[in-house]
Amino acid sequence: MQNTSEVYHNAGAYRAALQERALVPRGFRFAVTATEFVPAELGEEAEPLPIKLTAILAPAASRAWAAVLTRNRVTGAPVEVVRGHRGRPVRGVVINNKVANVCAADGEAAARSVLASVGAAFGVPAAQLLPASTGVIGWQLPVAALAAAAPQLAANLGATSAADAAEAIMTTDAYPKLRSATTPSGHRVLGIAKGAGMIEPDMGTMLAFIVTDAPATADELQEELQGAARSSFNAITVDGDQSTSDMVVLLSSREREPDAAPVAGLGAAVREVCAGLAGDIVRNGEGTRHVMAIAVTSRLAEADALAVAKAVGNGPLVKTAVYGNDPNVGRIASAVGDYLGSRPDLRRIGARDLTISLGDRQVFDGGVFTLGPASERDLSDYLVSCRCDTSGGFPPHDRVVRIGIRIGGGAGEREPHTVRALAADLGYEYVRENADYRS
Amino acid sequence: MQNTSEVYHNAGAYRAALQERALVPRGFRFAVTATEFVPAELGEEAEPLPIKLTAILAPAASRAWAAVLTRNRVTGAPVEVVRGHRGRPVRGVVINNKVANVCAADGEAAARSVLASVGAAFGVPAAQLLPASTGVIGWQLPVAALAAAAPQLAANLGATSAADAAEAIMTTDAYPKLRSATTPSGHRVLGIAKGAGMIEPDMGTMLAFIVTDAPATADELQEELQGAARSSFNAITVDGDQSTSDMVVLLSSREREPDAAPVAGLGAAVREVCAGLAGDIVRNGEGTRHVMAIAVTSRLAEADALAVAKAVGNGPLVKTAVYGNDPNVGRIASAVGDYLGSRPDLRRIGARDLTISLGDRQVFDGGVFTLGPASERDLSDYLVSCRCDTSGGFPPHDRVVRIGIRIGGGAGEREPHTVRALAADLGYEYVRENADYRS
Repeated sequence: MQNTSEVYHNAGAYRAALQERALVPRGFRFAVTATEFVPAELGEEAEPLPIKLTAILAPAASRAWAAVLTRNRVTGAPVEVVRGHRGRPVRGVVINNKVANVCAADGEAAARSVLASVGAAFGVPAAQLLPASTGVIGWQLPVAALAAAAPQLAANLGATSAADAAEAIMTTDAYPKLRSATTPSGHRVLGIAKGAGMIEPDMGTMLAFIVTDAPATADELQEELQGAARSSFNAITVDGDQSTSDMVVLLSSREREPDAAPVAGLGAAVREVCAGLAGDIVRNGEGTRHVMAIAVTSRLAEADALAVAKAVGNGPLVKTAVYGNDPNVGRIASAVGDYLGSRPDLRRIGARDLTISLGDRQVFDGGVFTLGPASERDLSDYLVSCRCDTSGGFPPHDRVVRIGIRIGGGAGEREPHTVRALAADLGYEYVRENADYRS
Repeated sequence: MQNTSEVYHNAGAYRAALQERALVPRGFRFAVTATEFVPAELGEEAEPLPIKLTAILAPAASRAWAAVLTRNRVTGAPVEVVRGHRGRPVRGVVINNKVANVCAADGEAAARSVLASVGAAFGVPAAQLLPASTGVIGWQLPVAALAAAAPQLAANLGATSAADAAEAIMTTDAYPKLRSATTPSGHRVLGIAKGAGMIEPDMGTMLAFIVTDAPATADELQEELQGAARSSFNAITVDGDQSTSDMVVLLSSREREPDAAPVAGLGAAVREVCAGLAGDIVRNGEGTRHVMAIAVTSRLAEADALAVAKAVGNGPLVKTAVYGNDPNVGRIASAVGDYLGSRPDLRRIGARDLTISLGDRQVFDGGVFTLGPASERDLSDYLVSCRCDTSGGFPPHDRVVRIGIRIGGGAGEREPHTVRALAADLGYEYVRENADYRS
């Protein structure tokens, strides 16, 4: 029962399943501890807030690691530290929630100071640890509180399961996210992620940490991680924002000997884990009532086809119609046409080149809608059937609203191929979670 | 009291003010009539729906007209008819609401057939009339019902005020939109518009019709209208969608004699009218609780600076925070950084180059947030003070949430200049209006 998406009828059953999923790659250990702090930005009279510290530790430092970092030009200090660490050996990752350490004064120094405290407690050089943070943007990292928690973090090393770590890195995620896979050769890949773009005003960050005991080179890991991220984490959209702190890190406990053969199926296992985690993230939001699976089949470049899919998945009119079980296919066609018109190099594509389907039903063909009263009702029933009913299970089922967009004609030079994206709908819960004043 | 944005304490007072604003350019006449139809797409047993027909007629056909049309590649039939009419003389415009005539079978033939009926009733060649439609995408134009209404439309010609026409082209707009201006030489410019991107599932279309008695050439009008649209209709965003049917038409009752001098101040009057109508459209939505006025000061190309402003104005996290009076400036910085990172040619710009202000207060400077508990409270109070309280007046006041973004450093080659955009926030009413099933 590795990566099934069965519905568990309560949180306990789901967490038990996670423990089973957690085939930890040999040699890796996890640690979690919790403490409190008062944000300087809120003044001394403010209530203390809880904050969790999580660590992932490999058996030894290794250059066999890779990272995919946010493209956002307003970047969190941890992202800058990781970017500067490329090519150097890594023993582990230290993660905190609650404070993202983005654009606060001396953010990088604060991140390094926390790594120094944790490194000292672990007996590991701070220069071999990577920082990761998620939480409020603009607040300063509570360095003293985290330093004081470091000894307990070290004491918990090993006593913590991967499922515990998946839970500890959450901000307001609805449930922990953990996926694992095994290569034909029996090497393990395990990933945990947090991400809740819809949920928390200041915590849209997506973090994922993947570990494997498959021996590999840094270049192999970087190539596999980038490919996996492109079709998973970079192909999902909740509200179109790429956070200041998004980070995906892949660590192997062993560097591959130059003369040894690459591990067969490692890339596939990494893709399976990333795809599972990405789906969990989109389904995560309590605000999400439908997950849209948008498939664009065309001769366009992969990036252009993905942009078309995201234009549909990010369109507020499409998202709200799906939320309301309204098969308003006019909005899908309009979103595609709007995007094509915004791209001078794609304006040659017209409505006549488009075919659109919703579920199994074609709704638009060659510039004309193919609709009637019956199809309207059927399509609305289809949307209702795809609705995520969080009350009925935990996590929600993985049924998706399938939107198919075929761009025909001579548009594009490549062989016809299909690019897929997952997107969340947009409803009242999104507004409630994102509009309420923070304090 | 031309273009004041005072608040009128009831709809009647506002409409009375509109009548005063309606300094109709000499020679133009308006007509409105209403009828009913049953959409074929809903089946014969469905309830009849009301539909309104509106006409604007110049004293004579003239080549002195201009149009700015949607860039959307899924285009309404009326847009295609107008595009094909360029360079030919125009006597008037015939507008219907309720059915957008987009991607329905034989849409252009249907539009021409309605023009033929109206032309016959008016004694005007159908080839001198432009069509415009707004309403449900995908439905067929009810040609027979509109043809039957043409004689009454002709009978009402002249008895209809411009304010009546502004009201008749509405779909679910909260109030009619009419603006006028006068050139130093006493020539008049009057515009009416409908647009309610937030309001109705299928009626996001923005239509504006502007008439003037200032003699001008078609080229002058096209240049003035494009310039005015760029800084008004194309600089507002409600939900980031450009509709399949957006259309702005400018008609002059008189062609300028080649030897006569251009009318001084005509461009300024057209810009004033367009800016007023664009502001009315953003404030229009019942769902709109705040209007954001985003100013980007930089050395970037105008289009790039406008794209930065729209990235902020379209960011769901920014929109929902403003709706909730939450001065979540981290989201503004993140939206700017996200957009810059998505544009390879702008990635050279970093957080260090950015200064951001909210109201009169600087909140981000050189990569660091400049915030504290006091500023958080003040900024929240500021957002509350900008809230559109539709209950207190009609239309809502024109106070806006001022967001200033300065991109410094060497970024861009041009002289520093400021580009402005208006955007609506995003709240529960948007979801309610857009998520409810149509029938």
